[in-house]
Amino acid sequence: MFEVLARDPSCNARRGRMELAHGTVETPIFMPVGTQGSVKTLHPDELELLGSQIILGNTYHLWLRPGHEVIRDLGALHKFASWDRPILTDSGGFQVWSLAKLRKITDEGVRFQNHIDGSRMMLTPELSMEIQASLGSDIAMLFDECPPYPCERKYAEKSLDLTTRWAKRCKDWIEKNQPRSGEGIQRHFGIVQGSIWADLREKSARELVNLDFDGYAIGGVSVGEPEEEMMKAVEHSVPFLPEDKPRYAMGLGTPPQILEMIGRGVDMFDCVMPTRVARHGQAFTLDGPIHIKNLAYERDERPICESSHPHVARFSRAYIRHLFRAGEILALRLLSFHNLHFFLRLTANARQAISEGNFLEFKESFIRRYTQAKSE
Amino acid sequence: MFEVLARDPSCNARRGRMELAHGTVETPIFMPVGTQGSVKTLHPDELELLGSQIILGNTYHLWLRPGHEVIRDLGALHKFASWDRPILTDSGGFQVWSLAKLRKITDEGVRFQNHIDGSRMMLTPELSMEIQASLGSDIAMLFDECPPYPCERKYAEKSLDLTTRWAKRCKDWIEKNQPRSGEGIQRHFGIVQGSIWADLREKSARELVNLDFDGYAIGGVSVGEPEEEMMKAVEHSVPFLPEDKPRYAMGLGTPPQILEMIGRGVDMFDCVMPTRVARHGQAFTLDGPIHIKNLAYERDERPICESSHPHVARFSRAYIRHLFRAGEILALRLLSFHNLHFFLRLTANARQAISEGNFLEFKESFIRRYTQAKSE
Repeated sequence: MFEVLARDPSCNARRGRMELAHGTVETPIFMPVGTQGSVKTLHPDELELLGSQIILGNTYHLWLRPGHEVIRDLGALHKFASWDRPILTDSGGFQVWSLAKLRKITDEGVRFQNHIDGSRMMLTPELSMEIQASLGSDIAMLFDECPPYPCERKYAEKSLDLTTRWAKRCKDWIEKNQPRSGEGIQRHFGIVQGSIWADLREKSARELVNLDFDGYAIGGVSVGEPEEEMMKAVEHSVPFLPEDKPRYAMGLGTPPQILEMIGRGVDMFDCVMPTRVARHGQAFTLDGPIHIKNLAYERDERPICESSHPHVARFSRAYIRHLFRAGEILALRLLSFHNLHFFLRLTANARQAISEGNFLEFKESFIRRYTQAKSE
Repeated sequence: MFEVLARDPSCNARRGRMELAHGTVETPIFMPVGTQGSVKTLHPDELELLGSQIILGNTYHLWLRPGHEVIRDLGALHKFASWDRPILTDSGGFQVWSLAKLRKITDEGVRFQNHIDGSRMMLTPELSMEIQASLGSDIAMLFDECPPYPCERKYAEKSLDLTTRWAKRCKDWIEKNQPRSGEGIQRHFGIVQGSIWADLREKSARELVNLDFDGYAIGGVSVGEPEEEMMKAVEHSVPFLPEDKPRYAMGLGTPPQILEMIGRGVDMFDCVMPTRVARHGQAFTLDGPIHIKNLAYERDERPICESSHPHVARFSRAYIRHLFRAGEILALRLLSFHNLHFFLRLTANARQAISEGNFLEFKESFIRRYTQAKSE
């Protein structure tokens, strides 16, 4: 399912290829997030234009609305959203943690009130697997418990044990039900927890690897911790994960963070940030982010960035600024497209640099220019 | 500039071709409205996919924001909005009438407070021409006064005289300044007023034709009058307009109204309705409009309409309904695209029917099915 094609001689960066039910994914890869069955503001044709190889769907959101039975009965998520390349779904656990109210975690699962109408609901490892099986994603994530940052070591230990117990129940469900993704089989990734403690990260990784999944994610990152802790979480987990399985850092990160993580051996990334900040007028450029609404761009004839895709580069900063001020939806589309292009190009360039054996040079040169912040 | 290619034997419908600075327009034609330099929610690539031959820009909006000097300095509206096919701009008069506050009409022009920041401004025939020249549209509309419905005959008479005096001033400005549109010349259309009075419509049409413009619009329609009065306004104007000049019914209408007007000899239409109602969940179908948010479509696997363009037809009603309920922008895009496709296909089918000499049959068959309202 996963093959390492090249390794960078001077760091842990690696280039790989994943074969999934709906196609091939070249790694390292950035995965656009389609929370509710749509990558916000974009049409699937544009995702193809961007060269998106795999997108995300959020189990929690799709379970609540329109409901996984509706999607299953309409032929599963690929057909529903008219997207025929791979899809990864998360477990729903993180959204229960970040969006739902009155959460109560027990060994059985998590009780909560949903954020839409306040209904009382319960999500369990088995139900998360069942929902994701109904969605028919290529990769389903195991149901885990994500401890907050900061948290007591005691809490982190208990949470980690719970995550391992839930992982076993997920595994049992998978073996019994053999979920499919289109014409192929659904793959399943375990999630390494353990907060900031190296020994807990190791323990979590070893326990999950013992259960043998198709890939492993580093969870519990991007929850408010300093960047240093984020990098350590990766460094403390990666050595205990098998070389021949893909590694996924969930919900990350800025362009420099993604490059740093690739250098530490991570293969997959997803983040809502590129599309979310786009809707507030922030665009990524090789010289760092810019805010398109600034007066400075009123008569700026240049495209957003010299790296812009032609779909966006045909418009001046002045025009996109005007669209933003005028409240035109095209503004949100153009910056969302641009920012995703920036992230997808970043991982594509990283792949190439790894193949050519000069990843560190590429990384340092990118970060140097990006953080000089010449633009603003 | 305009050539009649075919006439329907049983009514006033005609097929024609207009040569403008930025290309050819086949008539009868529907023109999508790009109020603020963007046809709401759509990218120019999609307008091309729709086969849009000409779009509108609103002088009032673009004058206020970003300002016509900004657009002029950035290379005029075609370049600013990255649209290289023809553009028609209105005079700004109608928006002053419908959006601005504290209007005061004098012989000189209209004083008002704008709807964005309440600034006091004045629009005159000369300024409207100057703004449209800065925008560089292919067709500029003369600055007119649009009487409300209903209005006193006395008011309509005075208003009509003012419109004629303003038309002369516009003509003077045009002759003196010779405005351009890209590599070609800008064309100018007069606007027939006269409210509901046949003799006033005739007077207005004759006075404008004496001044000799490139085309003529029927103005003062779609201002709250019954459909019968709308049709009469056309019937009372068309006989006094030259056969060899295009005729434009401003701001209209429903699909049956457009067909009725084509049958009365109108060549050009524009309306914000297809995109505006799309943003509220209404989609046009051959069986009449449907509201996609209705529960009836929760599991409906069919596309919006059997006539849907592939760009939209790949999605089920169930999916689009889900996107609307979830607040996803893609929903607005898909219905806007669909509705414009419906209107553009309507005028394309009308052109074909006229060429084949069976327009009346086409019109009656379309309206019969459309008004049976089987869908809801």
